[in-house]
Amino acid sequence: MEKQTYASAGVDVSRAEMFVERLKTMAKRVQHDKLWPASGGYAAVYPVSEDRAIALSIDGVGTKLLVAHKLEQYDTIGVDLVAMCANDLICVGAKPTLFLDYFATGALQDNVADSIITGIIDGCDLAGMLLVGGETAEMPGLYAPGHYDLAGFGIGDVTREQLITGDKIRPGQKVIGIASSGIHSNGLSLARKVLPEDKQVWGELLTPTRIYAVPVNKMLQEFSELVTGMAHITGGGWRNLFRLNLSVGFHIKSPLSVPAIFQRIAEQVPQSEMYSTFNMGMGFSVICDGDTGPVIEFLDKQGLTAQEIGEVTDQPEVLTIDNPSVVLKG
Amino acid sequence: MEKQTYASAGVDVSRAEMFVERLKTMAKRVQHDKLWPASGGYAAVYPVSEDRAIALSIDGVGTKLLVAHKLEQYDTIGVDLVAMCANDLICVGAKPTLFLDYFATGALQDNVADSIITGIIDGCDLAGMLLVGGETAEMPGLYAPGHYDLAGFGIGDVTREQLITGDKIRPGQKVIGIASSGIHSNGLSLARKVLPEDKQVWGELLTPTRIYAVPVNKMLQEFSELVTGMAHITGGGWRNLFRLNLSVGFHIKSPLSVPAIFQRIAEQVPQSEMYSTFNMGMGFSVICDGDTGPVIEFLDKQGLTAQEIGEVTDQPEVLTIDNPSVVLKG
Repeated sequence: MEKQTYASAGVDVSRAEMFVERLKTMAKRVQHDKLWPASGGYAAVYPVSEDRAIALSIDGVGTKLLVAHKLEQYDTIGVDLVAMCANDLICVGAKPTLFLDYFATGALQDNVADSIITGIIDGCDLAGMLLVGGETAEMPGLYAPGHYDLAGFGIGDVTREQLITGDKIRPGQKVIGIASSGIHSNGLSLARKVLPEDKQVWGELLTPTRIYAVPVNKMLQEFSELVTGMAHITGGGWRNLFRLNLSVGFHIKSPLSVPAIFQRIAEQVPQSEMYSTFNMGMGFSVICDGDTGPVIEFLDKQGLTAQEIGEVTDQPEVLTIDNPSVVLKG
Repeated sequence: MEKQTYASAGVDVSRAEMFVERLKTMAKRVQHDKLWPASGGYAAVYPVSEDRAIALSIDGVGTKLLVAHKLEQYDTIGVDLVAMCANDLICVGAKPTLFLDYFATGALQDNVADSIITGIIDGCDLAGMLLVGGETAEMPGLYAPGHYDLAGFGIGDVTREQLITGDKIRPGQKVIGIASSGIHSNGLSLARKVLPEDKQVWGELLTPTRIYAVPVNKMLQEFSELVTGMAHITGGGWRNLFRLNLSVGFHIKSPLSVPAIFQRIAEQVPQSEMYSTFNMGMGFSVICDGDTGPVIEFLDKQGLTAQEIGEVTDQPEVLTIDNPSVVLKG
């Protein structure tokens, strides 16, 4: 059987990455120098005073929307939407505060719309965010009946002291992995292509993305001296670790256990593609300059499953996993 | 011939309005009291210090996207996207500063994507905004080939002194109308239904939305004492004036001339529906507590066409136009 990739499922990540590079070049203005440099480009950080800034992040949930549509279950996709933004914001050290949504559909269906909004509000409550605005757009002719799209915009507060830049990441520091709740909101086009259209399997795909904001913000308050970087394992899978600091690499010795859903997808997808597309059981990662024990204990007490999975190396943009043996390069 | 309405074109504004009301009730949290009250709900205003806040607005361009798609001309729709956000932000007295975009498509086409981004960057330059982030989503199966959706998120700066609440609007104050560049980005579903699919007509529909940010911000600096309210004539047409202050109405004696494209649509659409859907030649409106002469002269010098069109009345949520004779109620 031919192996599947994200590109064969219709999502060409390298084309998208090249587009984003062209875009950045076109958009570059001298005023960009006013922004504070922030870890991994997870958020734009705009100063509002000498020592305080707001962090800004925009995101969507991809074709997880089509899973919700197929199952006609719309009350959790809003949690995913908030999660995608909130989990980005915390990577730069920000505390998520406000959220705005964009909800576009062909023709508004009251029950669907209400369910989606319920999920968004649940997500905001979980993330400690306030829904302060939104746009509801009816666009007949653009969306098929029952289809819709969602985009989320998140804002966070960060002080200069709290800001994480990734500059302090050094070889030898430890990598903590925090468990995901499932596939989260990335790689769904590939998962849907590979997995059977089985109600139970698709129901599992719909499990809402874990929101790490509250426990991770608490951890930062407690261990600010130890944390040198954090990665939301979002689009691009484990390659997100490369965003944190281009001069280091990662050696993963004991990853979190890989949930069955990924093992099932991996029957048809090469391992390197799996780790470049999915979170593989790790939704968030923390780089720790010191003993990880107290940090992991703290995270456990917050209800998260966390463990030390490996360490930072001096091989720039190389990530190696021992078992299964996988090598990713930036 | 049966008269057409926005609802018969597939956009049910009253259903959408009821949804937004339900949404606001569901989303309400005590923390909302921290926000500054701002005119017409055009933006959420979040304080970052005692006397300074950021204003937040999210918007899309509706089915103007389908006009761009039909004409295969993608380099100005981004201007519309920025305009929709920037023109909202200035209504609360804010100076637009930052922009983020959400660009979703079935499969990324380089030339289309580059054209769209070119427009967004042009729009940001025109509005004095900086493009600081974005999300590019490939969602096969959700969008038809060549289709895409756009959402924009705008941020502005505002001080407590600059903030416009609409509370100072009083009967007898004057209403200034500022000319639109055409249909802007509202009512396109109805316009497309009514107008023939003629390349010239559709080309006119595609004229980018005027961005009022820079000249209006300059006007505010010069005439801050005179301006009590401002309305971006966006979705809902002239009903946007009702947003400014619920205890007053408006009497329009001498509106700006109505562009031919609206007259052509009006052959099949009742006048009250026209003014409740389209900008009818007025893209922006300023409420002025005093002599409008210097303000209009100043706007003219900024390259805008402006005139005194009427005044504020004491009839709550009633807008009357003399010719054509139209009455709108809130």
